[in-house]
Amino acid sequence: MSQRIRVFAPASASNLGPGFDVLGLALERPGDVVEVERREAAGVEIVEVTGANSLSTDPTENVAGVAAAAVLRRLPPATAGGGVRLWLQKQMPLASGLGSSAASSVAGAVAVNTLFGAPLSRRALIDCALEGEVAAAGTVHADNVAPSLLGGIVLIRSYEPLEVVPLPVPSDLRIVVVHPHAEVATAEARRLVAERRYTIAQAVSNLGNIAALVSALHRGDLALFGRCIQDALVEPLRAPLVPGFDEVKQAALAAGALGCSISGSGPSVFAFADADSTAAAVVDAMQAKFRRAGVDSNAYAGPVNVRGARVVSA
Amino acid sequence: MSQRIRVFAPASASNLGPGFDVLGLALERPGDVVEVERREAAGVEIVEVTGANSLSTDPTENVAGVAAAAVLRRLPPATAGGGVRLWLQKQMPLASGLGSSAASSVAGAVAVNTLFGAPLSRRALIDCALEGEVAAAGTVHADNVAPSLLGGIVLIRSYEPLEVVPLPVPSDLRIVVVHPHAEVATAEARRLVAERRYTIAQAVSNLGNIAALVSALHRGDLALFGRCIQDALVEPLRAPLVPGFDEVKQAALAAGALGCSISGSGPSVFAFADADSTAAAVVDAMQAKFRRAGVDSNAYAGPVNVRGARVVSA
Repeated sequence: MSQRIRVFAPASASNLGPGFDVLGLALERPGDVVEVERREAAGVEIVEVTGANSLSTDPTENVAGVAAAAVLRRLPPATAGGGVRLWLQKQMPLASGLGSSAASSVAGAVAVNTLFGAPLSRRALIDCALEGEVAAAGTVHADNVAPSLLGGIVLIRSYEPLEVVPLPVPSDLRIVVVHPHAEVATAEARRLVAERRYTIAQAVSNLGNIAALVSALHRGDLALFGRCIQDALVEPLRAPLVPGFDEVKQAALAAGALGCSISGSGPSVFAFADADSTAAAVVDAMQAKFRRAGVDSNAYAGPVNVRGARVVSA
Repeated sequence: MSQRIRVFAPASASNLGPGFDVLGLALERPGDVVEVERREAAGVEIVEVTGANSLSTDPTENVAGVAAAAVLRRLPPATAGGGVRLWLQKQMPLASGLGSSAASSVAGAVAVNTLFGAPLSRRALIDCALEGEVAAAGTVHADNVAPSLLGGIVLIRSYEPLEVVPLPVPSDLRIVVVHPHAEVATAEARRLVAERRYTIAQAVSNLGNIAALVSALHRGDLALFGRCIQDALVEPLRAPLVPGFDEVKQAALAAGALGCSISGSGPSVFAFADADSTAAAVVDAMQAKFRRAGVDSNAYAGPVNVRGARVVSA
């Protein structure tokens, strides 16, 4: 009974310009790590949370615990029995717009499923991880959970019923994410979007761009892909919440980025590039503009993570 | 100087569910025919309009004349000289939601370009045909002009600047269009949509569906394609304008249609099927429901027209 399973689940960038609540992609890093081992008593015990002082170790309040419990409840009788002890290592910032709660939820769900012989499908694991997300955000949005679990670039066609469509990832595509050390209240950022009403012209703009973005991924046409990174619906509302956003975006594009927008609720800003060298130049340009706006930042650049959540050695 | 060019430009279904103003496809029939021949005097003379009593023969008011004049203005100096006489044969209903004015505009533009040795690109011809559309509708929307000219299923990524993205057409796909003999004022149908404000949830629904629709076309996945024929933005506003629409749609789906919605501003209703036999059953079911709603109808069923506008023999 002393087997311990360790799972890494990656951060994710979401919305990706035109795709509010329906597009997300997995990053190679950062991400969260969950370790689990079986215990005789039923249910989930969170032994320790490292890397984030503010997170609860109450398994009904911690998203990794909620997701882990959801997996336990769905285990087929033949594999079920007992519960789990869980260690959560937060290795990425909270409320960054990079799917922090999704990474913890996914890591918790995948770790418990693996520990019990992997009886649940990936689709069932998405449902379990979403229970964690709902506990964190109060609303269901799968555009971080699905890419963190599955890897790649993922589309949520529908929420009722949930239908996830993996999209092709061009091999040259590079993603840049810069996380400025500024706070954006996720709930407030979502309320801003939910309370607003939109014109048909705004919707048409995003419809044309998201449709062409998907075609560009299937063709591997990165120039077309870049032209599609536009958001007439949400970016105008959230840009004022990110210090220096307009300058950061202009700098990214001037440095060769294919496109640039806000990841999730922000404050992280993502950009795409078609080569590692361009991605590095884009990182430098974006971080310099954030510094001029008075904020330090962390940056990540690299290919899209096409593996998703995975078991790692201790 | 007595060469006469005869061009057929097809009708088109537009919106296709989630793609208001950005998606359209060309039908094999019906469509309009324009014949042109050169004359010594500059400009356009419309000799005759057959098939529609209400259309003007004033070339500044008739969309085929406007589009023809737009081509004449753009001819390179080496090929230009003199003007054209034009005959318009309307072979499809006006204000049907099937791109009647677009078909006339495209036929006019392509005919004149062909007569002068085809110096203009297809992109330039779209601009010329759009001048005709603007004359008819007062607003620029290219989701009928582009498919009528190019054939196939066409996406308008952006209007400023205009960018058209042709999408793959699965070979098994069949399109059904039923035109009930009822009137919908196009301008009023557009005003209804333009004046409304929309929630983010409505936009998110269409974003997920149009994105998955494009992926489905690239994969040739007709089942997924069918699930994407949903419209949370416009169909709810326009459905009451089409007599019996809810029953017609239900009947289409019950008869095996992959999806069903209103074409353009209506009153025509389109459906998709994955075989000729299903398409025929869908036609019967839809026309029966229109009859029960007290309206006769015409129907067209077949593959998507992948050729677009073309020169035909007299």
